Amino acid sequence: MKDVAAYAGVGLKTVSRVVNGEAGVSSDTERRVQDAITALGFRRNDSARVLRKGSTASVGLVLEDLADPFYSPLSRAVEEVARAHGALLINGSSAENPERERELALALCARRVDGLIIVPASDDHRYLEPEIAAGVATVFVDRPPGRIAADMVLSDSADGARAGVAHLIAHGHRRIGFIGDHPRIHTATERLRGYRTAMADAGLSTPDAWVALGGTAPERVRGAAVRMLAGPEPVTALFAGNNRVTVTLVRVLAEQERPVALVGFDDFELADLLSPPVTVIAQNPAELGRSAAELLFRRLDGASDEPRRVTRPTRLIARGSGEIPPSA
Amino acid sequence: MKDVAAYAGVGLKTVSRVVNGEAGVSSDTERRVQDAITALGFRRNDSARVLRKGSTASVGLVLEDLADPFYSPLSRAVEEVARAHGALLINGSSAENPERERELALALCARRVDGLIIVPASDDHRYLEPEIAAGVATVFVDRPPGRIAADMVLSDSADGARAGVAHLIAHGHRRIGFIGDHPRIHTATERLRGYRTAMADAGLSTPDAWVALGGTAPERVRGAAVRMLAGPEPVTALFAGNNRVTVTLVRVLAEQERPVALVGFDDFELADLLSPPVTVIAQNPAELGRSAAELLFRRLDGASDEPRRVTRPTRLIARGSGEIPPSA
Repeated sequence: MKDVAAYAGVGLKTVSRVVNGEAGVSSDTERRVQDAITALGFRRNDSARVLRKGSTASVGLVLEDLADPFYSPLSRAVEEVARAHGALLINGSSAENPERERELALALCARRVDGLIIVPASDDHRYLEPEIAAGVATVFVDRPPGRIAADMVLSDSADGARAGVAHLIAHGHRRIGFIGDHPRIHTATERLRGYRTAMADAGLSTPDAWVALGGTAPERVRGAAVRMLAGPEPVTALFAGNNRVTVTLVRVLAEQERPVALVGFDDFELADLLSPPVTVIAQNPAELGRSAAELLFRRLDGASDEPRRVTRPTRLIARGSGEIPPSA
Repeated sequence: MKDVAAYAGVGLKTVSRVVNGEAGVSSDTERRVQDAITALGFRRNDSARVLRKGSTASVGLVLEDLADPFYSPLSRAVEEVARAHGALLINGSSAENPERERELALALCARRVDGLIIVPASDDHRYLEPEIAAGVATVFVDRPPGRIAADMVLSDSADGARAGVAHLIAHGHRRIGFIGDHPRIHTATERLRGYRTAMADAGLSTPDAWVALGGTAPERVRGAAVRMLAGPEPVTALFAGNNRVTVTLVRVLAEQERPVALVGFDDFELADLLSPPVTVIAQNPAELGRSAAELLFRRLDGASDEPRRVTRPTRLIARGSGEIPPSA
């Protein structure tokens, strides 16, 4: 501040007034002080100088897809916990590509994050072992880590899908299709397992034609649904493996002549205002993010016990689409 | 790799086979090599070592709100352009707080990003002048910078709102309410300006009771709408200042006994499947992100001409809610 005062040719008190936005400074003087501040690279807030040295805590979050609304409340919850601990959050997206996940996670480590929260695209996280050994706390969320031991927070995907499919069976359905994400994604195979469990529990078979795992691109989901709804033994109900699949199925089913029941994994905005309103198995993504962030800060605070695995239950929200009876 | 080979007690060729995932290595040998890699912190990919030195290009994106779906395609487009230029994208959210925007932008600079794309929460970006002088390319998107000159990419908010309100007027409405975001947000005041222009062009007045700027929290939007729809001269149509306002108004209007017309700024997922389907003024957020990223890489490639201002047009998508006539 002394340098700024000298550069601007004003007293220290005047600099202080300008910096703190107080009255009693002419606009000409204010401009001189601001110019001096700019010229000297002075910053009011000490925290900025701390950041320059890299000693403010920061947390990196590696997401799977920036455009999937499931991750919005999860990110926001991580950010809120980080903020409460005086830390900044920086994000990046793997776009479901293991190599990008690795590149991004290591880039964040190279940028001196204190901890990482990862929604993994990879099934092998041994690349993180040197970082973890060097003190970077690491927590996995939504999906488990691969080939390393670390804290993780997951929803109970298998049980959620089981409950959703059992709900359709309880409403009279016997021919139920499952459309989910790529089989290399842990949550996709867990939800498929839940589907098979519910069907087996009811003594129902699950022919291959009723199961389609793959990407969530609308054309792929549409094609799979149209195939399952055609032929001599069409399905009378569909279970969607995540919200991206569900929103496409809502469109496909709106075009069908006969009603088809639908239960989707994940709640989503406006699901209750569609016709019919969409029955879902809801996760609590904010709670997943919060738990993961709390585990992370627990490690940053020095906890060195065995890695923890936290599993959160899901919740069936019946709204209409899952209660449609089988059409004749 | 020599160190790994020596540590694991195997030949260089064996290390190479393990690292490249080739066949012909026993699982025991593979494990020894992997352990050596972990112990020595070796990385297969040269890019990781480049990152360690901080010389891989990276771009920081400061968003306004992680939970606003408007920003998802914008972020994804920035990421795609960054990727095409061999650069990583790291994001953070200001949560519409000027101090957080500043802290985050400076933290990203301290972490050696080559360029910044900012959706500003602040109206004074002079804090970035030392960074820009030090070579950090900076582009503003969605809203203009404050008190500095820089490249910017904006939608034509005023004209979009004008067109949306003129559409309602063309369908017979004379009493039209405007519910928008905080008045300190540039796009909120620009859209209000468009509303006033359309009303004035049609010789219509805009009493204070028909205008509500403030946050997009559902309770606030609901309260404003309920007030405008009550009383002796209720509005017969509403214009929503952004997608967060629109989704709340969809809920409020679904509860009304008489039909109320609605046009919303921003398109949103499933808008066409609601009843009535929602008429919107659509921006192209992916195009905004792409343009901003292209301007950024142009600067990083050495362009030093005057800052550019790119304005993108909006598009009216008539779906039903904006074509409801005034109720008697």
